[in-house]
Amino acid sequence: MIVIMKTYTPSEEIATVIQEFRNLNLTPEAIESNHKVVIGLVGDTASLNPDHIQQISPFIERVMRVKQPFKRASSEFRNGEPSSIEVSTPNGIVTFGLNHPLVIVAGPCSVENEEMIVETAKVVKATGAQFLRGGAYKPRSSPYAFQGHGESALNLLATAREVTGLGIITEVMDTADLEKVAEVADVVQIGARNMQNFSLLKKAGATGKPILLKRGLSATIEEWLMAAEYILAAGNPNVILCERGIRSFDRQYTRNTLDLSVVPVLRSLTHLPIMIDPSHATGFSQFVPTMAKASIASGADSLMIEVHPSPKTALSDGPQSLTPADFRELMQEITPLAQFFGRGATPEFVKSPSGAIA
Amino acid sequence: MIVIMKTYTPSEEIATVIQEFRNLNLTPEAIESNHKVVIGLVGDTASLNPDHIQQISPFIERVMRVKQPFKRASSEFRNGEPSSIEVSTPNGIVTFGLNHPLVIVAGPCSVENEEMIVETAKVVKATGAQFLRGGAYKPRSSPYAFQGHGESALNLLATAREVTGLGIITEVMDTADLEKVAEVADVVQIGARNMQNFSLLKKAGATGKPILLKRGLSATIEEWLMAAEYILAAGNPNVILCERGIRSFDRQYTRNTLDLSVVPVLRSLTHLPIMIDPSHATGFSQFVPTMAKASIASGADSLMIEVHPSPKTALSDGPQSLTPADFRELMQEITPLAQFFGRGATPEFVKSPSGAIA
Amino acid sequence: MIVIMKTYTPSEEIATVIQEFRNLNLTPEAIESNHKVVIGLVGDTASLNPDHIQQISPFIERVMRVKQPFKRASSEFRNGEPSSIEVSTPNGIVTFGLNHPLVIVAGPCSVENEEMIVETAKVVKATGAQFLRGGAYKPRSSPYAFQGHGESALNLLATAREVTGLGIITEVMDTADLEKVAEVADVVQIGARNMQNFSLLKKAGATGKPILLKRGLSATIEEWLMAAEYILAAGNPNVILCERGIRSFDRQYTRNTLDLSVVPVLRSLTHLPIMIDPSHATGFSQFVPTMAKASIASGADSLMIEVHPSPKTALSDGPQSLTPADFRELMQEITPLAQFFGRGATPEFVKSPSGAIA
Amino acid sequence: MIVIMKTYTPSEEIATVIQEFRNLNLTPEAIESNHKVVIGLVGDTASLNPDHIQQISPFIERVMRVKQPFKRASSEFRNGEPSSIEVSTPNGIVTFGLNHPLVIVAGPCSVENEEMIVETAKVVKATGAQFLRGGAYKPRSSPYAFQGHGESALNLLATAREVTGLGIITEVMDTADLEKVAEVADVVQIGARNMQNFSLLKKAGATGKPILLKRGLSATIEEWLMAAEYILAAGNPNVILCERGIRSFDRQYTRNTLDLSVVPVLRSLTHLPIMIDPSHATGFSQFVPTMAKASIASGADSLMIEVHPSPKTALSDGPQSLTPADFRELMQEITPLAQFFGRGATPEFVKSPSGAIA
Repeated sequence: MIVIMKTYTPSEEIATVIQEFRNLNLTPEAIESNHKVVIGLVGDTASLNPDHIQQISPFIERVMRVKQPFKRASSEFRNGEPSSIEVSTPNGIVTFGLNHPLVIVAGPCSVENEEMIVETAKVVKATGAQFLRGGAYKPRSSPYAFQGHGESALNLLATAREVTGLGIITEVMDTADLEKVAEVADVVQIGARNMQNFSLLKKAGATGKPILLKRGLSATIEEWLMAAEYILAAGNPNVILCERGIRSFDRQYTRNTLDLSVVPVLRSLTHLPIMIDPSHATGFSQFVPTMAKASIASGADSLMIEVHPSPKTALSDGPQSLTPADFRELMQEITPLAQFFGRGATPEFVKSPSGAIA
Repeated sequence: MIVIMKTYTPSEEIATVIQEFRNLNLTPEAIESNHKVVIGLVGDTASLNPDHIQQISPFIERVMRVKQPFKRASSEFRNGEPSSIEVSTPNGIVTFGLNHPLVIVAGPCSVENEEMIVETAKVVKATGAQFLRGGAYKPRSSPYAFQGHGESALNLLATAREVTGLGIITEVMDTADLEKVAEVADVVQIGARNMQNFSLLKKAGATGKPILLKRGLSATIEEWLMAAEYILAAGNPNVILCERGIRSFDRQYTRNTLDLSVVPVLRSLTHLPIMIDPSHATGFSQFVPTMAKASIASGADSLMIEVHPSPKTALSDGPQSLTPADFRELMQEITPLAQFFGRGATPEFVKSPSGAIA
Repeated sequence: MIVIMKTYTPSEEIATVIQEFRNLNLTPEAIESNHKVVIGLVGDTASLNPDHIQQISPFIERVMRVKQPFKRASSEFRNGEPSSIEVSTPNGIVTFGLNHPLVIVAGPCSVENEEMIVETAKVVKATGAQFLRGGAYKPRSSPYAFQGHGESALNLLATAREVTGLGIITEVMDTADLEKVAEVADVVQIGARNMQNFSLLKKAGATGKPILLKRGLSATIEEWLMAAEYILAAGNPNVILCERGIRSFDRQYTRNTLDLSVVPVLRSLTHLPIMIDPSHATGFSQFVPTMAKASIASGADSLMIEVHPSPKTALSDGPQSLTPADFRELMQEITPLAQFFGRGATPEFVKSPSGAIA
Repeated sequence: MIVIMKTYTPSEEIATVIQEFRNLNLTPEAIESNHKVVIGLVGDTASLNPDHIQQISPFIERVMRVKQPFKRASSEFRNGEPSSIEVSTPNGIVTFGLNHPLVIVAGPCSVENEEMIVETAKVVKATGAQFLRGGAYKPRSSPYAFQGHGESALNLLATAREVTGLGIITEVMDTADLEKVAEVADVVQIGARNMQNFSLLKKAGATGKPILLKRGLSATIEEWLMAAEYILAAGNPNVILCERGIRSFDRQYTRNTLDLSVVPVLRSLTHLPIMIDPSHATGFSQFVPTMAKASIASGADSLMIEVHPSPKTALSDGPQSLTPADFRELMQEITPLAQFFGRGATPEFVKSPSGAIA
């Protein structure tokens, strides 16, 4: 249930109303949207009568039920206002969201050694990325395949962060590793295979860290938003959704099927920012640039691109990784396209490596 | 098997070589590509030795086997040169292909009556479309649903063609109707449900008319290209491939799943032009404009958009149809985007309604 | 809408009621079920008031709307009474349906030559099959693959029928071939790829011949029953549904995914008989016997099994074909199982090769 | 790589050979099969030359590479001998495996309170089940749905075990809960959504407890066996595979699609025992009995059936739960069928409630 307060309601009145909701054993969450305060109510609202709620204060404009099973994740919960998720990085705050420049996340599938991760970080930073991705813990179908360097790789990511100032995005696979990962990562990734690992969702939510939630291989959109809801319900509003391709009947020419219409669909359902990962979706570097462009045209807020200094010798996901030269070319192609769609990098961001947006 | 002739091979030599192939009981097909003639050989080539073929003429540069099961549809068969499919319409020749402007096909799901189809034709022409789509024979899941007006609707399409000069694209469902449909249609459509109706493919191929081949709901890319191969093998090189969404596990928010990465994948496999139909793919008009833009960014050669004067009262597919006003807005948005990608309408086309490209 | 008449309603009264319905521009279809006559009404029933219908005669026990979109195919339309489809063969009438013995259909994928089809027919007959299957027109993904011997193969099937007395089941792919196929076939098959070839469904329905309708590769159960409804709506009540495996994400170890729970699901939705084709479903002969047994346990009314005198040299579908020896072994295994489930062959059938069930 | 020793090789020789392999930094695992000892070798075997291995002892009959990516899970690794997994329960040892009676696992989706779980346990025991299932930790798509009673539910399962002597199967969702779950459970379940939760697989493997590994919703057979390989590679040979339905394009009439041909396919690939869960697969109690029978006919080694004292008031999965009366009827139907297939309960088991198989 959401309660929309009238424009210019005094803040004391809002505080009073919020307290009333607490007295009703509800968990109110207030957000500002277009000069109005909207209070989302979570809890046992099924038995509440909207008319009674309305009478709590003359400053209440409207009371509405959220019909979707995902409450906090729904557009209604923020009265249609998209979320802006601000992530603090050494280079400054980077904001994911509809009204912000396209955010670029790039890096290798897995952290292989210090030299490769630091060099890659330098390259992707120089080319315009705001975040470095790199796996310390790797979900691999085979127990005999390279499983990631784990804790020591986290340290290498910390070094790359220090050297370049890039934010770090890396995956957590086990609730037992959450603390260690959250220490290094600016955004903690929950991978496709763990999208319905509900224990991990709850505990990741509890860290308060921004969470990148990849869509499960055969997760419906509703299941995906319900997974996000687990994190939001744990008190963490900072969830970024990442489409990385779904499983279909045809896997001959691409690794997965990129479900790009998910971008406008999600936009109609949720306020959360949307990232596209064309590398995992297609599985082949030759298709990544085209689908990166299509992702921007579809309205994505962010792109995740795999870049490896030497894809042929990569310990994992080589075929889908761009070389640094490929990545540079990609950035040259997508920069004017992002500008075309009004999502170009703001000069402020570019000029304020200290972190404060001027 | 393909035979690449050296640059500037005399045409008599080419004629001689082609005759040699005929003597070997093969069906040679010659195309020009970048100052070279490439001769595609179809028939029982498995037993031929490329070295022996090479010795037929000193002007033969190279002999290669086509490894794909789709021979004529493969990129190799044209030595990497994309096909340009020229369709003659009253307004002039419209060309589908990679090096040509984006072609817009628009119109209602089905032809309902003379007024609606003629008015819609005028609107979409005025707004920049080159083709009118409209169903005379409709594949409907229920025998009790509107099945299309059949033959009389074909006559109405002919009227709309006459009035507006637009090319006509309409679907054939039965080999028995092929002749009638081919009389009116400038491009004959074979729908998703008939993609593996092999009798229809063969006979449609034999008409020589340009064929729009929609991808089946669960057709793999290879199966789709093999269906195209049926038409090509019947001697008809004019096939346009149309992606219209595939069937996946999630059908809650979209009717189908638009497989947009099919565009770069097809580009790497085949020389045939590629159309995207975001209306059937998403099933909801609100998602069509965004996915139209993403389609252009993915490199599509053509778009098919459903437009209906009054979607709410449409006899079929109302929810996915744009109103004329929506369509106008869509065209205003995509025109600069097509230009951005070098696929804007050429002034020549716009200025030569008489049919001759100046 | 269905009208259930009271037990022992005089037949004149039923005739009068039926005439009343005709006067209302409806198409009544009467069937007997458990001493009651049930009249199915098709046509524009949406505007009818069941209470008014009730008043037409005091012998009307109850009037009910059919809620399913498939009307004639629904269980309600026959008041829960399963259909028995009687097919006349030289060896006598064979009945497909829940209260009848399991019917075995066996034979090669395609008719290759007279000797192979007649020998196979003799073998499968001797082993206990009631029908011979064999393709004259073959749907093949490649235009370069063997397409079936067409009309001449139909003649060979006629010979095999004459020699063995087996009923013939063969596929039609083109409305133009329907008449020829219907002349030879006792049951006309519509294949998976043509399940939504609505022209073919309508015209096949119009022949009045029993139709075997295979499920499309990605057809939902509702779409399948709606396809059956096309045939029923054309006035042909003799439709047998055949599950042959659906397309899923995993095709590494089986050709398709056998959806066996479709048997109890269909039983709850429709009165039509159900056949299972474990050969196409699994694609490998080694899995056929086990899945044939599982099919019987799931309640299937009939099995279709591919048998080829020499699978290794078969022109199509060799890997999924049983040898005659395999088939004999299969029949020895499934005969006691069919008896266990009360679906064993009746001695009457076995003893009356002349055609009249004693 | 596997090494097959000659029949009647002296045990000292086997010990010597095993020591040789350890010296080569390999991990040898010996099993007996048909009077022969087969030694499976895991480790870096790619560089080993089978001919050199052969020369280690004259008692080595044959050396073979395992071609499958799943090594320990492959049939080859046990030279075709199926695994027998013995689980100790208060009522005695219950063995899962091809050459043993069908094992019945029954119980509610989740443990709701002491009375319901103890009563259900008594009912399913009296009706012939060997194991009680019941969820303490429940994976639910919504954070607002009942999440299971957690640790306190584990205590109630321990009570039910004590009262009835049934073995307990319950799910673990978080590595942090593994120890607690393993204390109560005789078989630890890893659910479909965690099938590729590789941290959980590794740590569950390390407990040494028998593990029930459910197939992921869109897991290929190979991915499933690779998940099992994670557990086996952690030194735990006791893995039971459970098919519970996969996700397909049609979810209108069943919750999932039961992929029953997985039984013969798995039998050809792996030595591990196979369980079928028709309750989750179909999602509706009305279809469970039929699919339980089909599962037995397909060769399943075990069935998991949801039983609830009052499905209508169940906190989860009510629609797919049988009542105690339904379950009794089911057992009466499947008991003779299991006997038909030679998988009936042995009198020994039935007669030795003390635990020692006579």
